[in-house]
Order: sequence, then structure tokens, then C-alpha cells
Amino acid sequence: MWESGSEEVLHTSCPPSDSEDRSEARAAAEMPPVGKDGRTAAKRGLLERLASGEVIIGDGGFVFALEKRGYVKAGPWTPEATVEYPEAVRQLHREFLRAGSTVLQTFTFYASDDKLQNRGNYVEQKISGQKVNEAACDIAREVANEGDALVAGGVSQTPSYLSCKSETDVKAIFRKQLDVFIKKNVDFMLAEYFEHVEEAEWAVHVLKESGKPVGATLCIGPEGDLAGVSAGDCAVRLVKAGAELVGVNCHFDPTTCLKTIKLMKEGLEAAHLKAYLIAQPLAYHTPDCNKQGFIDLPEFPFALEPRILTRWEMHKYARAAYDLGIRYIGGCCGFEPYHIRAIAEELAAERGFLPVASEKHDAWGSGLAMHTKPWVRARAQQAYWEKLVPASGRPYSASLSKPDSWGVTRGDKDLIQQKEITTENQLKEMFEKQKIVSGM
Amino acid sequence: MWESGSEEVLHTSCPPSDSEDRSEARAAAEMPPVGKDGRTAAKRGLLERLASGEVIIGDGGFVFALEKRGYVKAGPWTPEATVEYPEAVRQLHREFLRAGSTVLQTFTFYASDDKLQNRGNYVEQKISGQKVNEAACDIAREVANEGDALVAGGVSQTPSYLSCKSETDVKAIFRKQLDVFIKKNVDFMLAEYFEHVEEAEWAVHVLKESGKPVGATLCIGPEGDLAGVSAGDCAVRLVKAGAELVGVNCHFDPTTCLKTIKLMKEGLEAAHLKAYLIAQPLAYHTPDCNKQGFIDLPEFPFALEPRILTRWEMHKYARAAYDLGIRYIGGCCGFEPYHIRAIAEELAAERGFLPVASEKHDAWGSGLAMHTKPWVRARAQQAYWEKLVPASGRPYSASLSKPDSWGVTRGDKDLIQQKEITTENQLKEMFEKQKIVSGM
Amino acid sequence: MWESGSEEVLHTSCPPSDSEDRSEARAAAEMPPVGKDGRTAAKRGLLERLASGEVIIGDGGFVFALEKRGYVKAGPWTPEATVEYPEAVRQLHREFLRAGSTVLQTFTFYASDDKLQNRGNYVEQKISGQKVNEAACDIAREVANEGDALVAGGVSQTPSYLSCKSETDVKAIFRKQLDVFIKKNVDFMLAEYFEHVEEAEWAVHVLKESGKPVGATLCIGPEGDLAGVSAGDCAVRLVKAGAELVGVNCHFDPTTCLKTIKLMKEGLEAAHLKAYLIAQPLAYHTPDCNKQGFIDLPEFPFALEPRILTRWEMHKYARAAYDLGIRYIGGCCGFEPYHIRAIAEELAAERGFLPVASEKHDAWGSGLAMHTKPWVRARAQQAYWEKLVPASGRPYSASLSKPDSWGVTRGDKDLIQQKEITTENQLKEMFEKQKIVSGM
Amino acid sequence: MWESGSEEVLHTSCPPSDSEDRSEARAAAEMPPVGKDGRTAAKRGLLERLASGEVIIGDGGFVFALEKRGYVKAGPWTPEATVEYPEAVRQLHREFLRAGSTVLQTFTFYASDDKLQNRGNYVEQKISGQKVNEAACDIAREVANEGDALVAGGVSQTPSYLSCKSETDVKAIFRKQLDVFIKKNVDFMLAEYFEHVEEAEWAVHVLKESGKPVGATLCIGPEGDLAGVSAGDCAVRLVKAGAELVGVNCHFDPTTCLKTIKLMKEGLEAAHLKAYLIAQPLAYHTPDCNKQGFIDLPEFPFALEPRILTRWEMHKYARAAYDLGIRYIGGCCGFEPYHIRAIAEELAAERGFLPVASEKHDAWGSGLAMHTKPWVRARAQQAYWEKLVPASGRPYSASLSKPDSWGVTRGDKDLIQQKEITTENQLKEMFEKQKIVSGM
Repeated sequence: MWESGSEEVLHTSCPPSDSEDRSEARAAAEMPPVGKDGRTAAKRGLLERLASGEVIIGDGGFVFALEKRGYVKAGPWTPEATVEYPEAVRQLHREFLRAGSTVLQTFTFYASDDKLQNRGNYVEQKISGQKVNEAACDIAREVANEGDALVAGGVSQTPSYLSCKSETDVKAIFRKQLDVFIKKNVDFMLAEYFEHVEEAEWAVHVLKESGKPVGATLCIGPEGDLAGVSAGDCAVRLVKAGAELVGVNCHFDPTTCLKTIKLMKEGLEAAHLKAYLIAQPLAYHTPDCNKQGFIDLPEFPFALEPRILTRWEMHKYARAAYDLGIRYIGGCCGFEPYHIRAIAEELAAERGFLPVASEKHDAWGSGLAMHTKPWVRARAQQAYWEKLVPASGRPYSASLSKPDSWGVTRGDKDLIQQKEITTENQLKEMFEKQKIVSGM
Repeated sequence: MWESGSEEVLHTSCPPSDSEDRSEARAAAEMPPVGKDGRTAAKRGLLERLASGEVIIGDGGFVFALEKRGYVKAGPWTPEATVEYPEAVRQLHREFLRAGSTVLQTFTFYASDDKLQNRGNYVEQKISGQKVNEAACDIAREVANEGDALVAGGVSQTPSYLSCKSETDVKAIFRKQLDVFIKKNVDFMLAEYFEHVEEAEWAVHVLKESGKPVGATLCIGPEGDLAGVSAGDCAVRLVKAGAELVGVNCHFDPTTCLKTIKLMKEGLEAAHLKAYLIAQPLAYHTPDCNKQGFIDLPEFPFALEPRILTRWEMHKYARAAYDLGIRYIGGCCGFEPYHIRAIAEELAAERGFLPVASEKHDAWGSGLAMHTKPWVRARAQQAYWEKLVPASGRPYSASLSKPDSWGVTRGDKDLIQQKEITTENQLKEMFEKQKIVSGM
Repeated sequence: MWESGSEEVLHTSCPPSDSEDRSEARAAAEMPPVGKDGRTAAKRGLLERLASGEVIIGDGGFVFALEKRGYVKAGPWTPEATVEYPEAVRQLHREFLRAGSTVLQTFTFYASDDKLQNRGNYVEQKISGQKVNEAACDIAREVANEGDALVAGGVSQTPSYLSCKSETDVKAIFRKQLDVFIKKNVDFMLAEYFEHVEEAEWAVHVLKESGKPVGATLCIGPEGDLAGVSAGDCAVRLVKAGAELVGVNCHFDPTTCLKTIKLMKEGLEAAHLKAYLIAQPLAYHTPDCNKQGFIDLPEFPFALEPRILTRWEMHKYARAAYDLGIRYIGGCCGFEPYHIRAIAEELAAERGFLPVASEKHDAWGSGLAMHTKPWVRARAQQAYWEKLVPASGRPYSASLSKPDSWGVTRGDKDLIQQKEITTENQLKEMFEKQKIVSGM
Repeated sequence: MWESGSEEVLHTSCPPSDSEDRSEARAAAEMPPVGKDGRTAAKRGLLERLASGEVIIGDGGFVFALEKRGYVKAGPWTPEATVEYPEAVRQLHREFLRAGSTVLQTFTFYASDDKLQNRGNYVEQKISGQKVNEAACDIAREVANEGDALVAGGVSQTPSYLSCKSETDVKAIFRKQLDVFIKKNVDFMLAEYFEHVEEAEWAVHVLKESGKPVGATLCIGPEGDLAGVSAGDCAVRLVKAGAELVGVNCHFDPTTCLKTIKLMKEGLEAAHLKAYLIAQPLAYHTPDCNKQGFIDLPEFPFALEPRILTRWEMHKYARAAYDLGIRYIGGCCGFEPYHIRAIAEELAAERGFLPVASEKHDAWGSGLAMHTKPWVRARAQQAYWEKLVPASGRPYSASLSKPDSWGVTRGDKDLIQQKEITTENQLKEMFEKQKIVSGM
């Protein structure tokens, strides 16, 4: 039954019981967290903030946002943009900061040396992985200093692991990125987007060498990792490996991710372990995914538009995440700045302030009171947007898709990373296999 | 019958019959339209380009894109961003330029003096309309000079007209913006977003005083303008008023807009008049609109996500527009840079080059040949994306909505622009009326 | 725009302004229109009833209903069921009578001699067309006499016409069925389901020879007949040919049919002609049809289930038809007895009585007050069912389909009726052509 | 994730590997299972048939089918139709027999004495429960003797149990119906439609007193019964109570029911118990149900049309049920004769014959080879119908609904059966509660 599988609408936001709370929040927001003279007080660290009950808001998805802006190529998700188009990367960081992000992640996703050598994208030779990672750190730090934000150095799943290389080899890959993060003195480390908990453990081991706080998020659903480890066990193993912050990112929508984190939380409780929880889901509705997530949906990555969450659906996500005890709440692919702002607005009372970008966004659409048409002014209220289920405008479109299901990937010969560009013959084989698998 | 009312899928693109054409196009694209030394040849003007058969590509929608980035407020659509956040406006111009736009419009939408005095948004006093318009011109020119692009100075529908002020008063409003455009020496003028052809005629009259080329687009559907003038008659009146370029922008999706322009074209032919045609539709599917367009849809403006067109749907739009004889093809609200790039890619053979941003986007998803997962590599082909109808991922969502229908607006007492902020009582009245009209 | 193409929800029913009216209606219903002694007064004829302002309620669709019950084959729609399974045909007539039908049509659809010789279905030889038609008359009369109902003898479109035979030949075909109707003394004649008004005129000419009232309905949409004659002109020609009752049946949903009849009505008014109006639409939603109607929808005839109208949607149809001035309101394919009952219930106040079958159906679901579960009892009210838009339960299904569009049919060589069964080779050719036309 | 919650499309049918099989099946079908002289051989009993590997096909849903025909009232589902309209009940039995049913169930659903006294429907006084049950047996037997079918006497959930009466009281209720079944010598007993396994056990205990075979089906989903007993445990308890045949009926669609039966099967295997399996699901898609089934869907019972399964979806159900090892395959609410025929056609090779009604239905739409339009003839093939996902024709409709969730029912004071009609005040309370629960 659907009900047991998914709940599209999360629990709705409880408005602050006292309306004065909200005006205080706004007042606080009007006192920008950064001094007028540009000087910032020594920033409190991640664990210090979490320990004090602060809600940390993450940032959104860089590769999808920059792809739409024309600076990143889908497929290899070219992180060399940090060298090629620093102003575009900087602008996106700045928008997330304004939207309320208290962490800016270095744009180092898929920037490991082995990943940069990918099917004809010879970045290592043309630029060097070190430069790509250094530029990412510099840009993030520059923008973080414009506000009260922290910089997180991120590593992610490697082709080396998926091609069954040894623990030593895989760890060496992570260590190269870590060297840059240490040199650039990022504030904490985040191992994210791992399909297998084993590789994430290895990443945590390496990142712990820095002495900085370490978070770890898997891109798994409620069924667990791709090797069959349950979500609860995954959380336990990551905490035992040293992570202070665990959860999930990418691959699934907020509803599904919260379900997975709930299982992680229960696993930790059963094991009498403590850790902070982190959620960084997709901004796409994915009720129809299989365990490999949105990669397998036929719409990935170029036709996901109808699945994009509205800002109001983000309010519900933020509230549900908070109610589940998650205190690091961010996003991944599909999250644009206005999605992050919606999280910050939903949690304004808890955090004590509104984000800077809310100067251009009154709560729950109330800015529409300034619209020309009276029937649009009539939408300037929470009740309107909370109840609205938006139409697709696409009468020839169904609501769900059948995911591709080509099987589990690690160790598959087709999956081995290759430096060389995919040949015409290899593509033809794929096209044929696609016809067979999809039954078309 | 649906068929007679709307056709969701436009005629599909005819690939260039000769594959060499396409490689030539790519070769041409690699020769950037701007000299290596940064010097640009004296730019050819709009009419010169159109006369030579060149396809002009417009830019996308500033207010919606900047609202999502946190710099513009929905409702008043605050054009003062040109003064407040010039770097954000500049960045968006630059993305459209890279995506293939040959025209950059000054971000002067809703920047007439009477509009800036809107329900509590006292821009005129705080900044001044002149400064807002001047900054818009400066930014557009700066970015246009980074490529071979033209700058268009834009005016749009005024509160003065909607409040039934005199022709003299309304024209005075337009003239204030025109003074800035002349001072800043924009390349041509564009009167856009008019619900009534009469006001657009007045705007054309004023803009013609500049001696520059003038285009005019109405935000109407196939049923004609809000005073009941047919689409064909609207086109005739605009050309007689002096516009060299006529068409539609905003309010409706590409399919609907092309239907309207077809009627305009037929009207012009019947009147033995000649003009270039221009289309700048929404990037939202709106088959369910009434004659007032997407403003009346319940999802406007904060829940339109499921309606966003994919890049592949933009290919179809570009081809259908071209086949209809339209030679100025751009977009309006909802258009992000990647949508403009899709137009430029569809018409690369006709134009002889690809846009700069295509360095990060191989044709029809072929860049996915570099993706890790083999089933995603299998999507690196035109046939896959052309056939795909994307799912909504929203099983509780319908495909169409009932538009609000509060009646026609001009001269309505509720519609009179007021400087003062909307009061609580006024809002309550709106909420009550909404309940009655929608039958909730 | 959708709005101009179709309106799914027709105007809702105005409840009788005086609640006493309704109780009178119920009281009247409890006085059965047939005398307790089984004797019926001499029945008033069709024109007499219409002239007095009575609302005539037609019956529903025999071929689809009997196909689902196992007595009729889809494709040839075997009317020989009247000889083979008279009890099944009789039962269905009886159900419609109980549901409120004041006319029972002889089940003689597709029972012309030339149609009975169809691709391997040698009914003429095995049974004879005359026997099939006679049995149809006998059964309809038997059941009509159980109530106050009239019997209509029906003829429909012939293969002879579609194969371009002469007027004389086609009229001879109609005359053979008419001979039976005269012999069996049916109450009036109905020429129905004609795609070309010319053939319908010929049918009316023949049927008029009987001296009985004649009605004529085309299976066309708002675009007119398949030869391109407008709906308005079709109506004018049918009335001039002698029909006292004109309208449409089959091929389109109620919304579309009413749109067509509105055009017919306007055509008659413009020509200063008078006639009674009749509507007998499908019980399937067909907003996506082209001008050939539901035959071209991919779901025809075996997967139309999701399109079936609810009883509440029938209420809206009945009210809208009445408000348009239609006084003969019935149904065609897809109409089950409960659909007819819904019409009779909606118009109970106007007619002065409820149908017999309403003893098992309290108005607007109020019988649910007897349901076990309290939340189902809470549905025992008009407001609940009037507002409900039913979900499809089919998340992989779209809301609209693209119709097949193989072109117009009359005179097409593939369309010539053949007695012999379709060969394997002929089928293969069709399958191939289907792939090409649908682009699959 | 949807995948783990539901699979709309079941595994598709494997066509008989040998095409001769199918023609043999047809040949067998032409040899009617009933002797030409009307004499039937002594019928083999249920267990004998099952033991020999025969596939038993059940019948469809009487209350919904007769409601649509005008003979039964929704809510109390008036089984007194057996006395009031025996010819209508007989006709429906006959249609199922022709469609391939090898069991005809007495129409005794909700015909227990306590149920007949329901909120103003005083059947016990007006007719008597005994007469209703006797008439049901007589009609079923009469029709069963027209073929090779068995008669099953059915009992179902009682108001007495739901109102927490004692085991003795509840058993006395069942025993009254059993007395009639014994007197009328039905072939076997079926306890069906129980929400609580405890009551079903009591029913089995009573029915076993007859010495006849006993089957038992719960109306539960994969989450188990309403008291929280798992599906596996339910099956074990029913078999231990004496049922030779266990499974589920009603409340959920085929996909969900098969999931539940799979759990039952696993429960029995784990307990080393053996029993035959039976499935009698709804003919409505219900992926969105909660554990109380389709009763809670907003569309129940008057707006379920869009959810009706097509015949082709029934083929998939039949094949999936067979592959799961189920050998008693039938249907419940929503099943019309053509749905049962689809099951019989899918399993024709396994059973060795086609049902009688297949004379009017060639396999997989092949009868369309006789259709007039060539594009409809092109649909005369399995590949066409197997792949088609039918559109809803309802662009304002979503694919899923939120079920009402008023909580579990047994022992609830609102649920106590009352003889008296529901008062206006009681209804008003319900309406108010509905508004609160649904958040409207």
C-alpha cells in the first residue's frame, strides 16, 4: 500500500504559538549576523553550534544549479568550474549564504583525482586536481567570510572503490583532497554521496586524520546501502568509524530521506550511540525510485523539472526534519537558493532570525499583498499555499515512472571507470541493452 | 475537443538533412563571435540582422530567475535590484549571453515611475526611477559588450493606463523611461507585456520618437486582448503604429503563444502589412489558462514548478517558431539560461554556430556518454529525450487547474494602483471574495 | 487554451428553489406511472410529449453493456443477440426502463443487411437481418409495455454509404429495416450515428415514408461532419430533410456533445428553423479526441474504464443539457442503467417523479446514512459528491491520449466493407502502418 | 519508495509456449462442459477439483453490479434483492457462469439477521432473513445446474462482533445462515470479508459443523488484520480453525491482495501447514489505501469509476495469482462478467477450455479484426493491449487520494449497529467531524 511506502505530505508546520516570537525573529534578522564594518567575530565551530542547540542549515546542489547556468557539464559534473568560472561559483555560494546557509561546502564533488580522469575529460592533465580543489576552498572561504558561515571540505564516492581497488588505494585518493582541505584550513569535513557504507567508513578514517569534525552522509534509501547493509547498521558503522554527524544526502526526495534517517536514528538508539543527524535530500519528488535512487529514473538528469519541490513543500520538509531531531538541514541536487531560504524561514523562530534574502520574500507569500491583481493579493496567506497541490500542466504525463533496473553496480565490468571517451560501439551496445531492459 | 484547443507537443525538430551541416555549425561555434583581442567590430543593428535572415535569440525571464536567487520580490517584482544588487543582475545577463542570447533586455520591467510607487514599495523616493533605469542600461551594455549582443530598452504596461488615465499621462510615463534609453544609447526599443493593444500603440508612438527600431509584444492569447481586439487586429494596429517587430510575450506557454502569433501573421497578411515576428513565451506549460494567462492559475507565482519546460521541449518550441517564420525567438518568465541555450542549439545549423555555453552541453544529451552508470550513458541520444514524457513524481497532483476568474481588470476599482501598503482589512476582503469565487 | 477547447465541469445543478417541489416529486414517483392492474392508458406520442414540455429520457448503450455481460462481440457489435440471447437484451431494456428511460430503442444498431455481412460474421445467411430486426422490436415493445415508455426504431450509418454506393442503394438498405419497424408498429424513428450529414438526410427521407415522427443524430463534434459540413449547417439540413428532432449521439463525451448541440441550435436559429434537440453522448470523458471521436483514442474499445463518468458527473450533464433547451436527454456507449437513473434524478422536479430504480438510490448518496462506517455516513450529502474529483488510482497513467489519426475514411480503399474475414496479411499491414503513424 | 510499497503492473502473462495448446483450449471450449441433453454428470466437489490441480474460478461482485443495475442500495447493500428481484440476481449469476465461474456464491453477503436490521432497513420484519437466504440458495443452484458449477454458501462479518458481543452470540448468528445452507445443500462454505481473524475463526468453527469443505477469506492488506495480527499469523489461525482454503477478498486491488496472500503463504510454510489459496480482490486500483482498504478512499462507493481494471489488467492478475500458486481465483466488488472472462481466458491453456462467453470475445482483442476502421483493426493484437496504459480522460483528477483515517473501528461507540434510521443530528455530527479530520 502506498501509505506504508511513502507519505507525500509531511506534517505541516506548527506556527509559533506566540505571534511575538515571529516579530522577534524578524527583528533578529534585521540585525545582520555580520558586523556592519565587515569584521566577523571568531566563528563558533560546527560541534559547538550543534551542542548549543543551534540549527545548522546546509547549502543546495551545485552541480545541477551550475549546469543550468551553463558552467558545468552533466555526466562528469565538471568541478573544474572552480578554476574556469570562479565568479559563477562564487555567485552561487553567495546566494546560498544570503538564503540562510550556515555551511558552505567546497565545490569539490567528483573532484578526486581518479574521477577527474573520466571518459575523455582529462582535467588532471589540463588543470590538475590540486588546483581544482584549492580554488574551491578559496571561493567558499571568501564568501563564508561575508557572513557567519562555516566551510566544509567534501569528499565523495570514488571510481577506485567502484572498480574494486584496495582500501589503501581508495584512502590515498581521499588523502589527496584532505591535504588541500588542511592546507586551506576548512572548518570541518563532510564525506558525502556514498552508495556503500564500507567506502564511507574508509573516507571517515582518512578525514579524521585532520583532527577536525567529520560528518558522513550516504546516498541510500530506507532499504539500505547497495551491499545490503541496513540503514540502521550503516549509521552505527559510520559513528563507530568516527563520524560526529551522520545521515543521508542526494538520490531521494525529502520524504524518503527522512524515512531513512529515522531508521538510522533507531539503529543508533538501539546501539546506544550518539551522533548529530544531517539531511541533504534532493529537491525532486521521487516516490517511484528503486533503491538506486533518482539516477535510475528515466527523467534523470535532463527532464526532472515536473518533480521540483515548491518552496512550500520545503517548509514541510524543514519542519518534519526538525521534528525528527535533525539539526543539520540542507539540500542536494535541485536545491536552488529559494529552497534553502524556505528552510530558513520555516525555522526562523527556532533560530531567532530570518535570512538576509528574506528581505525580498515575506513569509508564506504575504509579499503578494503588493501584487496588481486582487485575486493574486488574495493568495497572500499561509492557508492558500499550504493546501495547494500544484497541477503539472502536462496532461500527457503520468505521475510516476518505472526506474531503469540494470542491477547493482559495484564490480560490474561495464562500470569500471575509463579515462578514454566512450566509443560509438560502446554507445550502440548500451542503446541495445536499454531497449531490452525497458521492453521497448 | 482538446485537439482544437491546444497541442501540447509541437512539431518535432527536423534534423539538418546533411550531417556535415551540423559539424560546420559546431566549427563555426568554436570561432567565437567576439575577436580574440576582445575588440568587437561595429555591431550590426537589429533590422540589419533580421533583413539578412539572421535568427535573433532573446533572453529569458529576469524577475522569476532573480526572485529564486533572492534579489527580487514577487508581487512588485522590484526592478530596483539593478541598483541594489548589480552583480546579481550582471551575472544573469552574462549567463544568457553565454547561452546564446543576441539581445539583452534592460531589466526595466515594471520600472516606470508610476509602477515603482506600489503598495508600500516607495522606490521613487528611496532611489528614484531614473537611477533604476540608468543602472539597468549600464549593466546590460557592459555585458553585451562581452559578446556580439544588442541592448534593448524595454517599457511595459503601466498602472496609469489600467487606472484609466489619459493618453497624455500614460505617454508621459513612457517618455521618462525613453529619455534614459536615449541617453544611454540602447540599440533598439521593445514595448512588451501589454494586455491592451491601445496602450501598446501609445508606447510605440512614444518609442518611435527615438528614431531607433521598435518592437512590440502583447501578453495575450489566441482570444485577443482584454478589450476584445482579435490577435490579428492587434498585430495590424501595432504595425500601423510604427512597430517593425510584433508578437507576444509572457502569460502563456510556447504552444499557445505560437497559436496567437499565427493569428497575428494571418492578420498582417490579410492587411498586406509586413513586420518581423517575435515570440517570448513563458517556460511553463499553461494549457489550462483563461484569456488572462498564467496570473490566474492557482499556482502563480509560487507553485509553478511542475509546469517548467524541459530543454527538450524548448527544442520543439524553437523549431516550431522557426517554421512559423518567427525570427526573434526568446523567452519570458521561467526561462533560465539552459532554456535559451536549447533554442540556440536547436537552431545552430541555421545560425551557423553554437552558443559559448554549449561547451558544457553536448547536443541532445550526448554528454551523458561520460556518465558513470551505463544505463545513463544509454540516454546519450536524441531519440531517448525526444520521446520521453516526464513524470510529475506527484501522485496527488492533477494535470490541469481551474484558473481564477475574477473578471476583466481595466477600470476595476479594486485594480487602481495605490501607493500605500495593502491593509489588513483589504486583505480580509480579498480572502473572502476568493472563497466565494472559487467555491471553497 | 483549454478553456476555449473544453470545460470538464458543466454548470452544476440548481436545486429546486422550493423544497416542497422535491417531496412532491418523490410522492409522484411513488405513484407508479403504470396502473396497478397492468393496463396502460393509451400512450402519448413523442411529439405530443415534447410539445407539452415533457422531458424525454433516452436509454443507454446496448453494445458496450452487452459486450461486458458476454453477449455481444466488440468490432461487429453483433446485433444478432436479439435472436441469440433475447433474455439478456430484455433484461437490459428492463433496467433502463426502471432507471427512468421513457424511450426504449430497438437494439438494431449495425443491423442493416449490408452491415451484418461483415468480415466473416455471416449473420445474413445464418439468421437473416429481418429476424434480427423483428426480434429487436418485439423485445423492446414487450418491456416498454411494462411502463409508460415508447419504442424507437433505429437505423444507423451503412457500409454501403462509406463504400460510396449510390443514394438509391443506400436508401434501399434503410428501407429494409423500416419495413420491419412499420410492421412492428414502433412509435417513432431515430436515424443515429452518422458521420456524414448527407447519409443522415437520406435516412430521414426514407424514415419519413412511415408517417411517424423522425429524429436524427450525428456522431460529430463541434468541428462538424467528416465531409466538413459545420454543425450548424448539419442541423439545418436535417430539419429541412424532415427531422422533427435533431442532435448528436456517441463519439464524444457530454461536454463536447453539448458544445456541438449549441452550435446546431445557433444554426437553426439563424435559419429561422425549429426542432426539438436531442443529446445521447458517451459515458466516457473524451477531451482529447480529434474530430473522429473516441474510435481514434488508443483506449477504444477495451481500455476505456478510467474515462467512465460517475453518476454525479451525469447529474451535471443532465442539468447542462436541460439548461441548453434539450428535451430529449439520453446516452450512448458506456451508459449503464445507473447513469440514466442519475439523469432522471437530476430532473425529477422538472418531470414530477423519480424513476422506479430510485427506490434503491436515495438522492445524492443520502442512502449512505445507512452505512456501517461513520466516515462513509459522512458522505451522505450532495456537497461531498459534487466537489469530489475522483482519483484514477493509476499513477503510471496520463490524463490524455493522442488519438490515432489515419485520415478521413469515406471512399478510402481500406475502408470498403468486405464480407470475408480479415487475413493475416491484411492484419500485418495494419500493424506496420500503426507503427509508422504512431511513431512507435 | 513506491517500488517497495506497490507494483502496479504484475508480471505479464507468459503465452503458452506451444501455439497448439491454445487451439486445443479453444477446441475444448467448443465442447461445452454441460451435456447437450441438459443432464450434468455428478459434479466433482471443491476439494476433489483442487486436489486434481484444477483451477477454480470464482465469480464477481454482486452488490456493486446489482447496485448499478438498480436492484441493490449502496450502504446496506440490500441482499433482499434475492426475494425482491430474483430475475435480476439470476441473470447476473448466469453471466458469471457463462464468463467461466466454476463457483457461484449465494448472494447472502450482509444477510445475517443482525445485519438486516440496519438503520431503518427493517428486512427482518418485512421479509425475514431466512427467506432472503433461502432464495439466494435456490437461485444460485438453479443457475449452477445450467453448467458445471458449484454453489458456495457465504457468511460474512457481523455487526454483533463489531459491537463486541460474545463468541456465543456471534456464532448463533452464523448458525442461522448455516441452517439454510445445510437445508439447501450447498456444495461448500465460504466465510468471507472479515476484518478481524478472531471473528473469522468463529465463523469457520460454525461452518465446519456442516461437514462440508470450508474456505475463509479476510478483507485485509499486507499489514494484517485490524487487531494487528499479521497476515501470516491470520492464515495459520484460519487453517488451524479448520479452513481448507484461505486467502483474502475485497478491500484491495489485485496487486495488494497478492502481496497479502504471499505473506499468508509464507506464514503457512513457516508453520508447516497446508491449505489451498484463494484470491478474490477488488476490480479497482487502490494503491493509495490505508489498512482499512477502499472503504476509506474518498471515492467509495460512488466515484470509483476511474479505478476500474481493464480486462487486460485482469489477465495480468490471473497470471500472477496462478504463478503464486493460488488455485481459486475470483473477484469481489467491481468485477463484472467480462473481468471473470478475462481470468478464464488467461488460464484457458491450464484449464483446457475457454468459457462459453468467449464466443463473443476473441483472445486479446483479436475480434477487432472485424472492425470497420483500419486503425482499430490494427489493435487486434496482444502486444497492443499489453503495453497500453490507459489515460484517465480527466485532466483535473489526481492519481491518488488520501484515505479517510478515522481510526480502528471495533468497539467504537459510533460503530454500534443501530436498527433505527440515522437522524439528522447524527448526520450533522458526522459532517462536522469529516471537516475536522480531512482538514477542509
